Amino acid sequence: MSDTPTAARPETAGVVNPPVIILIEPQLGDNIGKAARAMLNCGLVDLRLVRPRDGWPNERATANASGADIVIDNTKVFEHEDDALADLNRIYVTTARTRDAVKPVFTPRGLAPEMRANIGKGEKIGVMFGPERTGVRNEHIAMADAVVTVPLNPGFTSLNLAQAVLLIGYEWWQAGVNVPDYQMMMNDSFPAAHDEVARMLAHLEYELDESGFFRVEAKRPAMERNIRNIFNRMSLTHQEVQTIRGMVSAMRGAKHKPKPKT
Amino acid sequence: MSDTPTAARPETAGVVNPPVIILIEPQLGDNIGKAARAMLNCGLVDLRLVRPRDGWPNERATANASGADIVIDNTKVFEHEDDALADLNRIYVTTARTRDAVKPVFTPRGLAPEMRANIGKGEKIGVMFGPERTGVRNEHIAMADAVVTVPLNPGFTSLNLAQAVLLIGYEWWQAGVNVPDYQMMMNDSFPAAHDEVARMLAHLEYELDESGFFRVEAKRPAMERNIRNIFNRMSLTHQEVQTIRGMVSAMRGAKHKPKPKT
Repeated sequence: MSDTPTAARPETAGVVNPPVIILIEPQLGDNIGKAARAMLNCGLVDLRLVRPRDGWPNERATANASGADIVIDNTKVFEHEDDALADLNRIYVTTARTRDAVKPVFTPRGLAPEMRANIGKGEKIGVMFGPERTGVRNEHIAMADAVVTVPLNPGFTSLNLAQAVLLIGYEWWQAGVNVPDYQMMMNDSFPAAHDEVARMLAHLEYELDESGFFRVEAKRPAMERNIRNIFNRMSLTHQEVQTIRGMVSAMRGAKHKPKPKT
Repeated sequence: MSDTPTAARPETAGVVNPPVIILIEPQLGDNIGKAARAMLNCGLVDLRLVRPRDGWPNERATANASGADIVIDNTKVFEHEDDALADLNRIYVTTARTRDAVKPVFTPRGLAPEMRANIGKGEKIGVMFGPERTGVRNEHIAMADAVVTVPLNPGFTSLNLAQAVLLIGYEWWQAGVNVPDYQMMMNDSFPAAHDEVARMLAHLEYELDESGFFRVEAKRPAMERNIRNIFNRMSLTHQEVQTIRGMVSAMRGAKHKPKPKT
């Protein structure tokens, strides 16, 4: 029976009991280490091994964990699945095929909010992964509440152990964060105020006019509108506005001409 | 300039021009091979390398591609970024930090539907990844339309090259598939009809009654309801119903008792 943490851990972004990762008969220490590293990227810290082929501790695992020491140092090892799973309220098993078993099948994306909700209610949840080449056996599928299958290219599905752990962990992490799909990263700047950009545009349009750019007067309003659209959608900072004005002036030989009054 | 495929390729699940993956100065052949394999899992087939450290072809890459030959065999190599990017309408660069640049930032999940929509309109899109230890340089960020950043544990974000490619590819794949978040996998069976389950429950309740299970008559309706709820939510197949009836009968010493008429 594992210790139940009583405090949120910073590594898990505040989640008291994130899903436990259980590796059944992992073969290579390298893969265990890489799985540990994949876990920590996703705020998962509890790793359990059942009959690791090369025993434990494993220096290849430590070497490959590359800084995910907190996972390696707290890894628990078991002889029997029942002991590794004993305290878990829900168990999921990762496999590509359910084989004969009649079983609920989740995608990682479907499972993640479910895990979040149940963990939020105090449940302990685990996700099992099988040995690297052979995967889990039917007995492991029978032990689980449900199966998780990663939907990928049916013509070529070939994830290694750490990648499978990463994808399930990634979906777990995504279900708890709130990063916008898209944002403009301003890095301590902010977009220049509209009138500053307007003055830049006026400067630009003046110089274009002086250069004979607007050859057809009837087309000028549409062309000016297009130009404004280009520059207004860029979220130009003050510095960038200055840069553009400087470029315009230089191209127009500014040292020899007075700037327009703006 | 790369050849434009004119037919949908089965490896890409029918997408004529899935996103191109561009690796800038990849260091280890192993990592190139693993990236190629990650790509094919996600229906990505077009790999371009800019100044690979160890040249090309690379037998470590081939060995690590483990069956993703179609990617390795069609990999294109360039001396200059401009040539690798020349035909692309939109370019994204994967990095953890935008540094000084004012740049739109997508999550992989936010980017994927955008890529799908634009590719659907005939655009060619590429995603750049930098050298393994150092990542992309500022010049690469400047070449791109936008940045992609994978939101992961800020306390430990340590993805290797193949994992970063996998996560972007995974989101690309998910944005094009329609796998239910959850389904009950029946594997050529289907749930037994309601009346078959009802007869099983009647049999069970009869045997429970005969064994003195329902000790408090007033509680019986609620207990029967609980029992029915358990068995009705399992999507029991015909075979499973038979199994349960067999278990009930055996426990009640069925060989010595006539079965109830059902």
